Amino acid sequence: MAVTPSSISISSESLEALDLDPAFALHRGGKLETRSTVPVNNADDLALAYTPGVARVCTAIAEQPELVNDYTWVSNVVAVVSDGTAVLGLGDIGPAAAMPVMEGKALLFKQFAGVDAVPICLDCTEVDALVETVVRLAPSFGGINLEDISAPRCFEVEDRLRGLLDIPVFHDDQHGTAIVVLAALTNAARLTGRSLGDLRAVVAGAGASGVAVSRILLNAGIGDIAVSDSKGLIHQGRDGLNPVKEALARDTNRAALRGSTEEALAGADVFVGLSGSTVSEAAIASMAPGAIVFALSNPEPEVHPAVAGRHAQVVATGRSDFPNQINNVLAFPGVFRGALDVRATTITENMKVAAAQALAAVVGDDLSADYVIPSPFDGRVAPAVIAAVAAQARADGVARL
Amino acid sequence: MAVTPSSISISSESLEALDLDPAFALHRGGKLETRSTVPVNNADDLALAYTPGVARVCTAIAEQPELVNDYTWVSNVVAVVSDGTAVLGLGDIGPAAAMPVMEGKALLFKQFAGVDAVPICLDCTEVDALVETVVRLAPSFGGINLEDISAPRCFEVEDRLRGLLDIPVFHDDQHGTAIVVLAALTNAARLTGRSLGDLRAVVAGAGASGVAVSRILLNAGIGDIAVSDSKGLIHQGRDGLNPVKEALARDTNRAALRGSTEEALAGADVFVGLSGSTVSEAAIASMAPGAIVFALSNPEPEVHPAVAGRHAQVVATGRSDFPNQINNVLAFPGVFRGALDVRATTITENMKVAAAQALAAVVGDDLSADYVIPSPFDGRVAPAVIAAVAAQARADGVARL
Repeated sequence: MAVTPSSISISSESLEALDLDPAFALHRGGKLETRSTVPVNNADDLALAYTPGVARVCTAIAEQPELVNDYTWVSNVVAVVSDGTAVLGLGDIGPAAAMPVMEGKALLFKQFAGVDAVPICLDCTEVDALVETVVRLAPSFGGINLEDISAPRCFEVEDRLRGLLDIPVFHDDQHGTAIVVLAALTNAARLTGRSLGDLRAVVAGAGASGVAVSRILLNAGIGDIAVSDSKGLIHQGRDGLNPVKEALARDTNRAALRGSTEEALAGADVFVGLSGSTVSEAAIASMAPGAIVFALSNPEPEVHPAVAGRHAQVVATGRSDFPNQINNVLAFPGVFRGALDVRATTITENMKVAAAQALAAVVGDDLSADYVIPSPFDGRVAPAVIAAVAAQARADGVARL
Repeated sequence: MAVTPSSISISSESLEALDLDPAFALHRGGKLETRSTVPVNNADDLALAYTPGVARVCTAIAEQPELVNDYTWVSNVVAVVSDGTAVLGLGDIGPAAAMPVMEGKALLFKQFAGVDAVPICLDCTEVDALVETVVRLAPSFGGINLEDISAPRCFEVEDRLRGLLDIPVFHDDQHGTAIVVLAALTNAARLTGRSLGDLRAVVAGAGASGVAVSRILLNAGIGDIAVSDSKGLIHQGRDGLNPVKEALARDTNRAALRGSTEEALAGADVFVGLSGSTVSEAAIASMAPGAIVFALSNPEPEVHPAVAGRHAQVVATGRSDFPNQINNVLAFPGVFRGALDVRATTITENMKVAAAQALAAVVGDDLSADYVIPSPFDGRVAPAVIAAVAAQARADGVARL
């Protein structure tokens, strides 16, 4: 690579200017570090933690490979893997620019559930290359958290890795969102005196999160669901659907609605916005009584919660400055912790639903229109999710411990 | 991958039996962890370390990619990469069994020079696959420490990566060993009143460390050097030499010696053992007066230091229980720290020699036959190496800061 060293240093003055923004000041030097958990203060320590003592541990693992989980950090460490193609709402900004998000994710894993995590931003975007690279990396990790990989590649990457690896692989943009939406919707339905089977939902967005939310709602028994993308509602027979959307067309939209998201909202019970687009007040007003509106695009919700609140009974967003924040951090740390604790070989659909139910149950009797989902800083969240996921892994026969 | 979960758990009784060995007890649960360096205790913290604040940092890096070094951990983190094919003296034990060594290396990076490091054991061994994988991983790291990759693949892997990446790539089995040997030999020559140019050396072993030691001694102006492998001395015209040994044959063995290592030792000034083989007392006795013997194979030196000491003036080993331990940890933490501190694009030959000279200089006036190289726990070592490497990077025009 041709590099002219002097051309690419940043002056300390320009950094100081950036650091006037507290987000930059906090990020200076990064947010993550590695540390030793054992002492290395003298030759005796070194002889145990490194040569010659380490050779005995290596030999034992060579003879019994599963001992790697007991005598290395592997069974507690998750790779947070991205190719930087769908970072937050910023799009395809590449692996370097994705690093602050992956590093942030890694620290949330540790902070919320004691899971060590390493951000891995990959300089490749082809499905084959991504799959191949993660498979090669896999001996170093107890789980793979895929992150901010654009649709529809993300579906194939995850599916193939799940087939190839015997450790949990979890695309958080899909399943983290899906778990928290299901938890919040379960509570919103309870608040409004309905079951999921009573509800007709419209999901705007058929990217990673839109598809996964639709799938988990179908699995959980939602009454009906219509999904839209930038070309409108997805229905059977629509031209140019990719395989993932074709499957969705088969499994959703029983009324065979066509047209726009807003048209589908007329009489609907639930709106889940995961599209980055906008929805008019009139469309929200056209929903059925007791409407549930999850306007989850960040930083700008599809409809302002104050506007939605004029017509809907429950409103949630992705933002921390409004009630009912749908935040993936409610799910992914506990999901991986629970899976790692029992050395699950995979994360099943049941485990995701169990996580959602546990999350919903934390709200308990405090349920209200402004409290259908707990705060990320509620100390009951992670233990509840961990216990539910671990128990379900055992029940599903995928636990090794 | 076909996994029968119940078949691969280890009983806690068998783990307890293993843990009677203090090396196993220390390794239980691993030796490394990740930690957050910033607070995440409330929604305000989360809004800076994660969304929405992190988006501004990502955007800035997308516009000015080099900012990744200022606002993420990348510029302080090294990947310790192995394919598990040449682990310690254990050979090709695979990526899982290699993990305790790579994890140990990672903690030594942190302990001795404050460098964050992540062990990456790869499930591939082809040169193309290793190179391709590390290139894909590179955006996540400030440097690549290659480790325990078998020769001769290790030479091509390193060469190609050095050509493809603009961050330091350093195969420690080669260059870490070479730096410490050069430092110790510099001091041994000083002690015995000679310059490197006065010395004729025999290096037993033409694997990663043997080749690199030979190269650094040639660069440093050693008088002559003969290198042997399992088939005897390497000389021009020998059949079946690989390209690396062919190049060595051209540059070494000016006397065109043939035959065994032991034959070459007659009248030689220096023996460096990096072969795992043995050398007889008679061969050591045949060396020139004031002989210098570095019997570096672990755990069994090529000749016991007590035996060598009957004939040689200076004896060193790779072991901590004899004087003059040649230990890579004297070099690699400071080499990377120095390179990262100035954001060097590479580690030049000059930087390695500068590291060796700095290391040798720590011994200073305390030089004696039992003290030609400092202890890894001498607090002066890392600062000296760091300063020398950083200064040389600037002098060589490869520093970005």
